[in-house]
Amino acid sequence: MARPDPHPAPENVSDAPLRALVGYQMKRAFNVIQADLTRTLDPFGLRMLTYSALALIVENPGLRPSQLAHALAVERANVVVYVDQLEEAGWVTRTPALGDRRAYALQCTLAGRRLYERAQKVVHAHDTRMLNGLSEDETATIRKALAQMEQQT
Amino acid sequence: MARPDPHPAPENVSDAPLRALVGYQMKRAFNVIQADLTRTLDPFGLRMLTYSALALIVENPGLRPSQLAHALAVERANVVVYVDQLEEAGWVTRTPALGDRRAYALQCTLAGRRLYERAQKVVHAHDTRMLNGLSEDETATIRKALAQMEQQT
Repeated sequence: MARPDPHPAPENVSDAPLRALVGYQMKRAFNVIQADLTRTLDPFGLRMLTYSALALIVENPGLRPSQLAHALAVERANVVVYVDQLEEAGWVTRTPALGDRRAYALQCTLAGRRLYERAQKVVHAHDTRMLNGLSEDETATIRKALAQMEQQT
Repeated sequence: MARPDPHPAPENVSDAPLRALVGYQMKRAFNVIQADLTRTLDPFGLRMLTYSALALIVENPGLRPSQLAHALAVERANVVVYVDQLEEAGWVTRTPALGDRRAYALQCTLAGRRLYERAQKVVHAHDTRMLNGLSEDETATIRKALAQMEQQT
């Protein structure tokens, strides 16, 4: 007869101490949202951050990379990577800004605007799907709570 | 007189199309939570994922790395990195599992348990701080909403 394992694997793994944390719950929910968004954007050749960058460039013609980095709360070096990808795909152009040789203005191309408008529809459908089963009141509460959490320091 | 820039930078950058998405709001809120958690854990030599791994090892003695990866919904290769760090710090030990030469059982050391218990207190205070200004009802709603979002497919 085999001797019993002195360190048997637990049959049921408890993650209760992590589940007690709203931050952990949010991370797990966001993982699901991000995976669904990735699938949603894939047919458009976009990812979460290139979609976000394109949205802001469409909405704010002439946007500077530093403004884009600030608005998305990401590092300027990362923004340059997303902009490169959008430019290579023919969706965004850079124009040198007058008076500052290092700066440039971002604009979407016609193809970029059309792609964004098509992608925006399915992204909104994805976002609505993520809220399935929640009432309007609950949705309003979660939006308020998220906005407030973002202001915590 | 300088000629006007044909592509002036927008004075106010609008991110309204992204703010309309609950997924984007959640990402922004989670960034704030993660930054606060990072500051909270730094004095303990822990980060978000090493804290999470330590919590599950303390809670589930004998845990296998594959179980840890599944419980945290991260890649097994990443789990090995966190476990290495916890082991090097002297907070976790690996014991070969009987009957499977590739598997091993994870246990916390006394130092690991004590560190976890001290860290857990400040992590819970951090989590409560993130909910500042929200009523009990609102907190219950956001927890319910996050749990439900995690089940969406």
